[in-house]
Amino acid sequence: MKASAIANSNIALVKYWGKRDKRLFLPYNGSISMTLDGLYTHTTVEFDSRYGKDTFTLNGKEVMQGDELEEVVNHLNLIREMAKINQKARVVSKNNFPTAAGLASSASGLAALSMAGAKAAGLNLSKKELSILARRGSGSASRSIEGGFVEWLRGEKTDGTDSYATQIAPQDHWDFRIITVITSGKEKKIKSRAGMAQTVATSAYYKDWLATVEEDLKKVREGILKKDFKLVGETAEYNCLKMHATMMTTRPPIIYWNPTTMDIIHSVLEWRDNGLGAYFTIDAGPQVKIMCMEKDMNEIKQRLKEIKNIQDVIVCRPGEGARLVDKHLF
Amino acid sequence: MKASAIANSNIALVKYWGKRDKRLFLPYNGSISMTLDGLYTHTTVEFDSRYGKDTFTLNGKEVMQGDELEEVVNHLNLIREMAKINQKARVVSKNNFPTAAGLASSASGLAALSMAGAKAAGLNLSKKELSILARRGSGSASRSIEGGFVEWLRGEKTDGTDSYATQIAPQDHWDFRIITVITSGKEKKIKSRAGMAQTVATSAYYKDWLATVEEDLKKVREGILKKDFKLVGETAEYNCLKMHATMMTTRPPIIYWNPTTMDIIHSVLEWRDNGLGAYFTIDAGPQVKIMCMEKDMNEIKQRLKEIKNIQDVIVCRPGEGARLVDKHLF
Repeated sequence: MKASAIANSNIALVKYWGKRDKRLFLPYNGSISMTLDGLYTHTTVEFDSRYGKDTFTLNGKEVMQGDELEEVVNHLNLIREMAKINQKARVVSKNNFPTAAGLASSASGLAALSMAGAKAAGLNLSKKELSILARRGSGSASRSIEGGFVEWLRGEKTDGTDSYATQIAPQDHWDFRIITVITSGKEKKIKSRAGMAQTVATSAYYKDWLATVEEDLKKVREGILKKDFKLVGETAEYNCLKMHATMMTTRPPIIYWNPTTMDIIHSVLEWRDNGLGAYFTIDAGPQVKIMCMEKDMNEIKQRLKEIKNIQDVIVCRPGEGARLVDKHLF
Repeated sequence: MKASAIANSNIALVKYWGKRDKRLFLPYNGSISMTLDGLYTHTTVEFDSRYGKDTFTLNGKEVMQGDELEEVVNHLNLIREMAKINQKARVVSKNNFPTAAGLASSASGLAALSMAGAKAAGLNLSKKELSILARRGSGSASRSIEGGFVEWLRGEKTDGTDSYATQIAPQDHWDFRIITVITSGKEKKIKSRAGMAQTVATSAYYKDWLATVEEDLKKVREGILKKDFKLVGETAEYNCLKMHATMMTTRPPIIYWNPTTMDIIHSVLEWRDNGLGAYFTIDAGPQVKIMCMEKDMNEIKQRLKEIKNIQDVIVCRPGEGARLVDKHLF
């Protein structure tokens, strides 16, 4: 009844922002992401009747209360319901990157928890079933079950059985790269879940966002399959700006960019004006992700050294999907 | 045949962004501004048959070519047509603030040129007629003819005769203040005229912008008349964010904010969270205008000292409208 899994984080090229069903985590729109090699959560789950309650240890520290603990317990409840068991569980997780600063730790976290938890509970789930389970913990986690380039289908059904992620292309399909530039290590003030609910409720631009996402999905999907860097880069950057524009026009405004974010945005636009193949995308946080091809990666890393106040630079290749591992954390 | 005028700049509380008629400068939406005490253009115009061509001197330097010269000559042509004269003119202008860095120098410039030019041409125009004339040189200039708090009516007619600015309240109506924070002295890369045309043509959000401006106009108009600082501040800030969101979602993106702009935005939001009465608005440029009441002005100026890379801070009260002056510049 003990199992461990590793799931990589992912970065959306076409963003998920807003739920049409908050209980089932059904999105208003589909999204496309790249699973990130090297940024992962490693989680061990054990269900056992000797545990009097569910416990959750993250990065070496037991989480005693709060939203994070509640999320884990809720997810364990889902798994127990599916497996028809009632033992409490011990969950131990490690991220190899800063939590909650816009690096999608909830994506890798809930994907790893789903895979390890389902296995520990004796369930034998398909990737589709795991993606649906992960989705119910955190929307973007549905995309971290698969590797490479992944699309989370919006679905139409009210029970959510058609809203899961599928692979568009495997990790070795393309030498597309994402350079994550860390501009702040602080936890963000407004978490994605609260932010997107507020946007759906109040932004003047949410309607136009939804009206134009389908086209972005089509272009990015096509761009990935054809390995058309310009089409993917342009569309993903535009989609990111559209998402941040809906955030900024939320009331009260949600502005995730900091001065360094701004500096990097202008740098990327300028580099591109001068012929370098670079586009940016930004999730619900201040970190900037620069999309490029392998051949331009070192040039971009070099140029980033000239920008002040950058905390860290992480290069990611397309990564593999979530997988069970033998190494347990306890 | 020589006349001089001074016109103050203005800052929009509900923004003008996009023309429905590019020749007549008819806007897609109405706008509301405060005329700024102390930021002005002083212009002298002389029509005389001894001039072989129109000349334009700005801030002591003759403008030999380019868009600015063309704008002045086109405007002189309009005035000559109205006055049925054909002499060429000498135009000398001085701004007491940096040109083209988002301080609406075209508003004060074209308003002063309209008033001095009309007078020098022997025309006797009403404020409404002057506002229409100024509008045909630069949309926002229509608002600099009047003082205090001003609304530029969208109008419905195709000939533009109902699209002019009127006063909502005079300059001594209210101790509302605008603190202009200069974050860059550089000329902006994309001028408003080109920027708004590109937004209208390509932004996914322009439709939603237009759908929500009427409500902003109503709130700000009402807020000014009732002296409701919160209503004016909140609505103006939201309107500014909506405008910048349409710019950012233009293709290619138009991003006027720099790192210092971002720093000030977050500072104002934080000050407000802590109870200080401050809202921001930003025009097509990187400068931030902080709206406040007279009583909070010194506290805000003090806090601005803690923010790095600010070039200058200018406090503006509501100013008077454009007026003829005796002092000629040549």
